[in-house]
Amino acid sequence: MFTFSCPISFSITCSSSNGNIQNHGDYRVNINVNGSSCTGRPIKHHTLLNEVGVKEGSTSLSAIQFLENGHISEEKIRQRIPRQKLLVDPYRQGLITERGVGYRQTVVVRSYEVGPDKTATLESLLNLFQETALNHVWMSGLLSNGFGATHGMMRNNLIWVVSRMHVQVDHYPIWGEVIEIDTWVGASGKNGMRRDWVIRSQATGSTYARATSTWVMMNEQTRRLSKIPDEVRDEISPWFIQKQAINEAVPDKIVKLDDKAKHVNSDLKPKRSDLDMNQHVNNVKYVRWMLETIPDKFLERHQLSSIILEYRRECGSSEVVQSLCQPDEDESFANGVQQNLLTNKVLVGGNGRLGSLDINVLTYGYTHLLQTQNEEIVRGRTRWNRKICTGL
Amino acid sequence: MFTFSCPISFSITCSSSNGNIQNHGDYRVNINVNGSSCTGRPIKHHTLLNEVGVKEGSTSLSAIQFLENGHISEEKIRQRIPRQKLLVDPYRQGLITERGVGYRQTVVVRSYEVGPDKTATLESLLNLFQETALNHVWMSGLLSNGFGATHGMMRNNLIWVVSRMHVQVDHYPIWGEVIEIDTWVGASGKNGMRRDWVIRSQATGSTYARATSTWVMMNEQTRRLSKIPDEVRDEISPWFIQKQAINEAVPDKIVKLDDKAKHVNSDLKPKRSDLDMNQHVNNVKYVRWMLETIPDKFLERHQLSSIILEYRRECGSSEVVQSLCQPDEDESFANGVQQNLLTNKVLVGGNGRLGSLDINVLTYGYTHLLQTQNEEIVRGRTRWNRKICTGL
Repeated sequence: MFTFSCPISFSITCSSSNGNIQNHGDYRVNINVNGSSCTGRPIKHHTLLNEVGVKEGSTSLSAIQFLENGHISEEKIRQRIPRQKLLVDPYRQGLITERGVGYRQTVVVRSYEVGPDKTATLESLLNLFQETALNHVWMSGLLSNGFGATHGMMRNNLIWVVSRMHVQVDHYPIWGEVIEIDTWVGASGKNGMRRDWVIRSQATGSTYARATSTWVMMNEQTRRLSKIPDEVRDEISPWFIQKQAINEAVPDKIVKLDDKAKHVNSDLKPKRSDLDMNQHVNNVKYVRWMLETIPDKFLERHQLSSIILEYRRECGSSEVVQSLCQPDEDESFANGVQQNLLTNKVLVGGNGRLGSLDINVLTYGYTHLLQTQNEEIVRGRTRWNRKICTGL
Repeated sequence: MFTFSCPISFSITCSSSNGNIQNHGDYRVNINVNGSSCTGRPIKHHTLLNEVGVKEGSTSLSAIQFLENGHISEEKIRQRIPRQKLLVDPYRQGLITERGVGYRQTVVVRSYEVGPDKTATLESLLNLFQETALNHVWMSGLLSNGFGATHGMMRNNLIWVVSRMHVQVDHYPIWGEVIEIDTWVGASGKNGMRRDWVIRSQATGSTYARATSTWVMMNEQTRRLSKIPDEVRDEISPWFIQKQAINEAVPDKIVKLDDKAKHVNSDLKPKRSDLDMNQHVNNVKYVRWMLETIPDKFLERHQLSSIILEYRRECGSSEVVQSLCQPDEDESFANGVQQNLLTNKVLVGGNGRLGSLDINVLTYGYTHLLQTQNEEIVRGRTRWNRKICTGL
C-alpha cells in the first residue's frame, strides 16, 4: 500500500462543545505542584472583541480545567490547553466564528516576518496558517498533547498528514499591518479533511490571500494511511462546513521533474532549527528550499502569486535533499521586460500591493521537486507576477 | 575612526507624550486613496487590560493620525503608525508601563517558534526582543518610517546599531504558554543607549529570561558612528530609566578566535530570507550560524543558559561568512557525564525547565567568532547547562 507522511500533523476537531461562555477573569492561580505550593500573580481582567455574545470580563474558569484530580504537570499549568470549547481567547486574539465552527484570529505582522521590502514573506504566511489551524483545535477543547491531534486520534495512534496545499496571494500584508485570518474545515472525500484559510486586511476588509489544504490520517507507528475511525469522525464532523476559500474544479497535475531541470540545489541538509514538534522537517522549510533554488535575479523582480504543493513522503532529519526547479519559459525574457519597465520608471506601490498599473501583469510559472535519492518528497508549482517597485 | 554597523537598528524614543488616552473604538474607516474611495469594515469595539487608568472602549482616534493634509499613502493606512503616544495597543497586546516609559507585551508562544522539544528557541526569543523593542517605539508616537528610528534621527540620517547583547535564559517558555515581555531603555555612557528586557510567565510571574543590549548611533550614509544630536536626545532621554535587567559590574572580555578553533563552518552565504528591512543580514541569523557550528551531539544534550554578543561590523548580502567556535574544555567530557546521567535515569522536566535535580548542574562554555576574510563581524560567548530530559 502506498503510504506517505508529512512533517505537520495538525488537525481540527471538536463536537461536545456546550457553547458555554469562557472568559478569563481576574483571578489568582494557586496550585500544588510536586508538593510545593505555587501562588501565581493575578491574571488580569482581560476582555476581547466578541461576536458571539460572550459576557465580557466574566470570571468563569470552567473551560480551563487544567486541574485534574489534584494532580497536574507543570507543563499543563503553563500551557493551559482547554478541556472544553472556548469561544474567545484574548491571548491568541482568537474567536469562534461561522455559527460555532470556524475560527478567526487577529494578527499584527511582526518585524521579523517581513522581508527587505517590508512585506510578509510566504514563509510567514504559511507559519500563520499552521498557527491558526492549531489554535482552532486549541479552542475546540479536544486538543490532546500532540501537535494538533484530537483525543480520539491519540487513542488510535493517529496523526494528520497534509497531502496537498494551495495558496493564492493577491496582496502581501506589510510590517505592522493588522490582519484577520479565518480558517475552517470540511470533508474531503471519504477519509480526508479540507482546511481553508482567508487572510483579510483588518482596516479595509480586502482579501489578501486564500488557501486550501487536504489532510488524511496516518498511524503514527506503522506510518500507513488510515480510515477515519468512527470516534474521530464523531469528534470532527460537526465542525465540517462546505464553504471553500479556493474553488478548484479540476486541480492541475504537477509533472515530475528529472535531472534535466534547469536549476538544481543539491546537498540540502536539514538542521536542528528546521525540525518541529513532530521531530520532522517542517513543511514550511520545504518551501524555503524550493524557492531558494530559483535564481536571485528572478526573485528580486517577481512576487509569488500562487503555490501548489503535493506532499509525497516525509523527510527525516538525517536525509540529504535535492531541490529541482524548471521555469515554464526562459526567465531571461521576464528579466528583460522588467528591466525596460524599471528604465521607464513605470513604478507604483512598493508596499506589497500592485498599483493601478498592474493591468498588464505578466505571470511566470515554475515547476518544483524536492527529492532524496530519487524518492520524491514534494512536487510544487509556483506562479509569479512582476514586482512593480517604488523609489528607484 | 573605528566604525561599525549592524543589521538591526531599532531604537527607543519619545518625549512630548501628553498622556492622552488612546483607544480603538467602534468606527468605520472611510478614506480617499488615489482618487478612489475605500470604505473599510467597522473596526470592532476592542478593549484590553489596562494598568494606567485608560478609559476602556473610548472612541478617540486622536492618536492614530494617519490622515495628513488630506494626502495619505496606502502604506500609511495599512500600517497606522501612531503620531502620538499610545498607552495601550489591543492588537499588539501591549501597554505602556513604568510610569509611562516602559513597555509590556503579552505574547503566546507559537507553534513554529518552538523546537522539537516544544520549548521556544533562542532565535524566537531574540525575534521577540526585536519585536517588543520596535513596538515600544511604535507606541511612543515618534516612530518614523524606518526600522525603529525616531523622527529626529531620520532628519539627521541616523540609525541605531547594536554594539552588544547579553541574554540569560533560566527557563524556556513552551508551546502555547502565555508570557509577558517587559522592555525599557536607559543611558549608556555619553552617546549610547541601553535596552533591557525581562520575560516572565504570565500564569506564575516567574522570571524566565533577562537581556540587556547597548546601542549607538550611526550615520546611514557615511557609516560612521555619531554623537546623539540634541534634538534626538530631547526625544529619547525622557524615556531613560536606571533599572537594569542584568547587573554587569565588569563585563567579560571575549577573546578573538583564530583558525586553530576546534569547530569551523566556512562558506556560509546569506540568503534572501536572511535579510531584514534594513537590507542587512539580521543579527538573529548571526546567532543561528554561531550555534549551528557547535556539534549536534552537544546541542542535543545541552541547553543554552546565556549568550553574549559583541558586534563589530555589519554583514552584507553578498559576503561569505566563516563561523568558528571553541569549547572551554573538550566537550567529550561533558557528553560522558551526560551519558552517565541518562544511564542512571536521573531525569526530570523535559519541558524547558530544569527540575528539582538541577542542584548539581554543570555548565559548559563556548567562544565564538563570525568573520569574513579575517574581518570580524561578531564575537560571542555561550554558556550551556546539561539538558535534563524526560521520558527516556
